[in-house]
Amino acid sequence: MKFIHTADWHLGKLVHGVYMTENQREVLNQFVEVVGEEKPDAIIIAGDLYDRSVPPTDAVELLDDILFKINVELKTPIVAIAGNHDSAERLSFGSSWYKHSQFYLSGKLSNNFEPFRINGVNFYLIPYAEPGLVRQLLEDDSIHSHQDAMKALIGRMEKNMNPNEPNVLVGHAFVLGGQTSDSERVLSVGGSGCVGAELFEPFSYTALGHLHSPDAIRHDKVKYSGSLLKYSFSEAKQKKSISIIEMDEKGQFSHRYRSLRPTHDMRELEGHMEELLDPIFYEKERTNDYLKITLLDEGALIDPINKLRQVYPNVLHLERKIDVTDQKKKQVLSAVRSEKKSEMELFEQFYKEMTTSEFTDDKKAAMAEIFEKALIGEAALK
Amino acid sequence: MKFIHTADWHLGKLVHGVYMTENQREVLNQFVEVVGEEKPDAIIIAGDLYDRSVPPTDAVELLDDILFKINVELKTPIVAIAGNHDSAERLSFGSSWYKHSQFYLSGKLSNNFEPFRINGVNFYLIPYAEPGLVRQLLEDDSIHSHQDAMKALIGRMEKNMNPNEPNVLVGHAFVLGGQTSDSERVLSVGGSGCVGAELFEPFSYTALGHLHSPDAIRHDKVKYSGSLLKYSFSEAKQKKSISIIEMDEKGQFSHRYRSLRPTHDMRELEGHMEELLDPIFYEKERTNDYLKITLLDEGALIDPINKLRQVYPNVLHLERKIDVTDQKKKQVLSAVRSEKKSEMELFEQFYKEMTTSEFTDDKKAAMAEIFEKALIGEAALK
Repeated sequence: MKFIHTADWHLGKLVHGVYMTENQREVLNQFVEVVGEEKPDAIIIAGDLYDRSVPPTDAVELLDDILFKINVELKTPIVAIAGNHDSAERLSFGSSWYKHSQFYLSGKLSNNFEPFRINGVNFYLIPYAEPGLVRQLLEDDSIHSHQDAMKALIGRMEKNMNPNEPNVLVGHAFVLGGQTSDSERVLSVGGSGCVGAELFEPFSYTALGHLHSPDAIRHDKVKYSGSLLKYSFSEAKQKKSISIIEMDEKGQFSHRYRSLRPTHDMRELEGHMEELLDPIFYEKERTNDYLKITLLDEGALIDPINKLRQVYPNVLHLERKIDVTDQKKKQVLSAVRSEKKSEMELFEQFYKEMTTSEFTDDKKAAMAEIFEKALIGEAALK
Repeated sequence: MKFIHTADWHLGKLVHGVYMTENQREVLNQFVEVVGEEKPDAIIIAGDLYDRSVPPTDAVELLDDILFKINVELKTPIVAIAGNHDSAERLSFGSSWYKHSQFYLSGKLSNNFEPFRINGVNFYLIPYAEPGLVRQLLEDDSIHSHQDAMKALIGRMEKNMNPNEPNVLVGHAFVLGGQTSDSERVLSVGGSGCVGAELFEPFSYTALGHLHSPDAIRHDKVKYSGSLLKYSFSEAKQKKSISIIEMDEKGQFSHRYRSLRPTHDMRELEGHMEELLDPIFYEKERTNDYLKITLLDEGALIDPINKLRQVYPNVLHLERKIDVTDQKKKQVLSAVRSEKKSEMELFEQFYKEMTTSEFTDDKKAAMAEIFEKALIGEAALK
């Protein structure tokens, strides 16, 4: 039995105001090619197919298109669950029909704990669900946390489980000790939302979604595939991949990664304006990547983002490097701001923060005139 | 060949602030029973399955449940299209899988004009689409109106049509001369949005959705089934039904109606408070119906809606009867309002409109005091 484990596609994701849909389409088409090459017996998508409960229509069409290619055209069974970003009910629509062609989609948690079988392997699905919903479904008032909920659900599954067969769990959860990034929505506000990896002991392999790095936890049988793409700059240094698992009839498996290559990588770049805009520098760069640029310049800069975008069209985020001295200045400044300062004093401080030149008397006179006009205008509005 | 024609389910519809979902569930369960009894070769749903592009999740679950019962459990083919209330893209998701079990769902207009065949009948589907979209799809710049679009689409279909076979069109359109109600969203703002019934001449039967009355047009081959339920008080007097068609191999057909009975009908009621709240009157009434009540009382009434709801819990709309004399008064009043009148003069007029008693001097004095306080308050806010 060979299967591919992927998760966290987040179709329709918006990163710093830019829809990732075209990038996602490209990488998913590569994914379809990999499925064609590898000819797995199934693919697993462990939740967060969409980025939100009501995704944009082009994300809906993209998912439909990709799943059709895999399941109908390549005749590859699909096993998928809803994650915390998906709407369980909306994703569930039609799932009864999909089973015909071995597309097993579990959007909404049900109290059917029987596995289904693909090529000798038993699959158990636990779509993302709030603990309160699990408490209600199982009629078990002792369930309060994600840990309680997962434990109770797996308990039900274990009742009829044959431990001598290969058993695979597909879930969407935050496993204790897992490493987070900025693009995973927290599962619990207050409370940890975590579940312990030991809960998954009964399974030969646990295919998880939620954390975006394939290295989020180190465990021999409990694994994250990582997200389809980098979805925040905190993931810039992660390697994104899909996992290919080959499992024998005892549940022993080998595991390897394959990577997909988006045209636009997501990276961080740091430097001075002059250097970044120098052809000698940028000709070696993949200038079309989605970039977070950190400028090291200390002085005033006029419209740096538009200048940078002439070379790097996909700058998504721009920061100025504030070194330790600047941080201290900032603290002083905010202390000063809490006292009562005149507009001119505040502006002088701001000018000194932002430029390297002096705030001369004629500059002061010019500003005084501007303040006067502005203050007259403000008074007229009252 | 026997098929049932229905349309305009509008699942998730909100009428005067009340979700119709439970009413819809009940009537659709009756519909499933009718399908079980009639054993048709197909059912047709001619658009507006949902009331809006992003329906509430319980409406999504209801549609999934009902279609599953009909298509999978009762093994009855389903032919359905998107209407102007549906999101073509969202409704389309999964339709490639549904075909397996002869559930033909056309959400988004495509340029495949070949029919599919059920039991010797050719079905042609035209989901609702804006003329601009049809213009783009057919690459025909002469398409500007719904009439142009429908004509062009049917033109494409006619190319390979065998006129000696029974051909059924399923569409969602406003056919010229059709009678409208308050709950159908207009198809075109400016422009008529209408299409002529003569366009459907090539078809043995045209199963339409959009207008909510089965009597919206009188035509021997072009028919509306009407909506599932009454969705506005302007439909209160309509009879809602589903159409049962039995067609021979030449496309000749017989047509009959079957009605579904919601627990809560939608009706209008008129009378004086005293009469309406009299057990002798209301004991003969179906007091749980969704009601629009028109009160004939002329004097002032204290909290009439809550008094009425103690007897008629589902009053959705309350009106006071304004007779011809009142209408005239209203016109005078609005003419007066465009002049500059004092608060007291305006209130006196209002008092006389709303009550049958005199606006005495002590009432005037009391109001003067209230005005003064209110005006001081208003000045203080400035």
